[in-house]
Amino acid sequence: MNPNLRILVSNDDGIDAPGIFALVTALRSVGHVDVVAPMTQQSAVGHALTVALPLRAIRRERQGLPFGWGVSGTPADCIKLGTQHLLDAQPDLVVSGINHGRNTAVSLIYSGTVSAATEAAVLGIPSIAISLDDVSDEADFSAAALVAQWITPIVAERGLPRGVLLNVNVPRLPASEIRGIRVAPQGESYWNDIYERRLDPMGRPYYWLSGEHVLVGPKESDDGLLSDGYVTLTPVHYRLTEEPMLATMRGWGIESENGLLGSLSATGPAQANR
Amino acid sequence: MNPNLRILVSNDDGIDAPGIFALVTALRSVGHVDVVAPMTQQSAVGHALTVALPLRAIRRERQGLPFGWGVSGTPADCIKLGTQHLLDAQPDLVVSGINHGRNTAVSLIYSGTVSAATEAAVLGIPSIAISLDDVSDEADFSAAALVAQWITPIVAERGLPRGVLLNVNVPRLPASEIRGIRVAPQGESYWNDIYERRLDPMGRPYYWLSGEHVLVGPKESDDGLLSDGYVTLTPVHYRLTEEPMLATMRGWGIESENGLLGSLSATGPAQANR
Repeated sequence: MNPNLRILVSNDDGIDAPGIFALVTALRSVGHVDVVAPMTQQSAVGHALTVALPLRAIRRERQGLPFGWGVSGTPADCIKLGTQHLLDAQPDLVVSGINHGRNTAVSLIYSGTVSAATEAAVLGIPSIAISLDDVSDEADFSAAALVAQWITPIVAERGLPRGVLLNVNVPRLPASEIRGIRVAPQGESYWNDIYERRLDPMGRPYYWLSGEHVLVGPKESDDGLLSDGYVTLTPVHYRLTEEPMLATMRGWGIESENGLLGSLSATGPAQANR
Repeated sequence: MNPNLRILVSNDDGIDAPGIFALVTALRSVGHVDVVAPMTQQSAVGHALTVALPLRAIRRERQGLPFGWGVSGTPADCIKLGTQHLLDAQPDLVVSGINHGRNTAVSLIYSGTVSAATEAAVLGIPSIAISLDDVSDEADFSAAALVAQWITPIVAERGLPRGVLLNVNVPRLPASEIRGIRVAPQGESYWNDIYERRLDPMGRPYYWLSGEHVLVGPKESDDGLLSDGYVTLTPVHYRLTEEPMLATMRGWGIESENGLLGSLSATGPAQANR
């Protein structure tokens, strides 16, 4: 245990969730742990920030002992407010999780767990998101806690490039049955969403989301390898320019230095359609 | 006007915002327009989905005429629920906006306006996000509406690669003073956030977010060119693997086929630190 290694832990399932308790317990053998996490469950919040409301921060206990700060906001809010106001010193590392459910493939864009790590990366702090492939109430976080305890000092030692975070997924298996550890790219997938239409007691319709995650490919990705029983490690960035399309679009002849009105008349739809 | 071109319009400022009204009015001269938008303002929601609550959808009017569906959810919810339940036919194109404020550089990861377009791209529908660089109540959306009217048929005609959306930003200038149109990469930036600490009437602290957007580079990016008076067009993807880091991490020797417990003992921190 290195008391000079300051680790900020957050999550999106809320400060009272079992996953963050397992994570904090595991990381206390690695370094100094501070907790700043949402007061309530924030799943599928994406990279949300609270701008229209003020934030509250309250000290919370677990099992009768001081645990950390509960914040009335999102995971990204927690990282910002924690590093700016709540902590005595800046963290060397942010670890987010352990999420109740996998965060692979397209799910990364919806994930609050990943967004806490992304916010840390934006702020220049190396970060890890860790998720367990189990959404059940009886989920066993012990193997994922071991993985967190193992990978955290490795990342602390080796670092990550600026703007890159590490996304970790752990299978729903006892530690002894997990097949191994793989570095893997993000898979390509979509949610085959079903909004179930129901009627409320007044006869008015409402819609409830459920869905199935469909992997398009490749099999050797975070999503595929996790399903095959591997712990997966995926380095993630957030540079979103589609570079090849820049050149393609420049070839469309729609750029202009002639002011807006001249440009629109020169490259309007009639022109573009030829 | 092509009645066979079906355009779904959404936004994150809410169905009653001035920006979506300007956009819909402009696009009715381009094709058939359906509106599915959040009932309330949803700024900085990121790519959130509503999973813990049911959604409501209500028909809304504007200026005494049918306008579209208001949904009790996020921009991404609107695209999913609209395409699955509310619309008579699938849209050929999704256009999100006109946002009250720029969406450039790192702001893309927080933007609800962009998330509606991203959700469409996930579903395989070409999409455009459009934002005006003006957060004031008196914002004039007329130049941005002209830009939407110009670019929408171009994208409908030429298409976009699967998984790519077009992010458009319009300067806060009269149309006659806009310098031109540029295809531009996403800039690199951060928010120099300040949480102002205040005390409520009971003497308890609360924190309110405000901040300044700082462009790291390059000047020839969405953010820089917008500030220079150009309309910017940025093709955006959401493939998040940091490819070079895959090879680097494989070189760390932490992959394993020996089960989890064997792997952790062989590649623990002591080993990794050598």
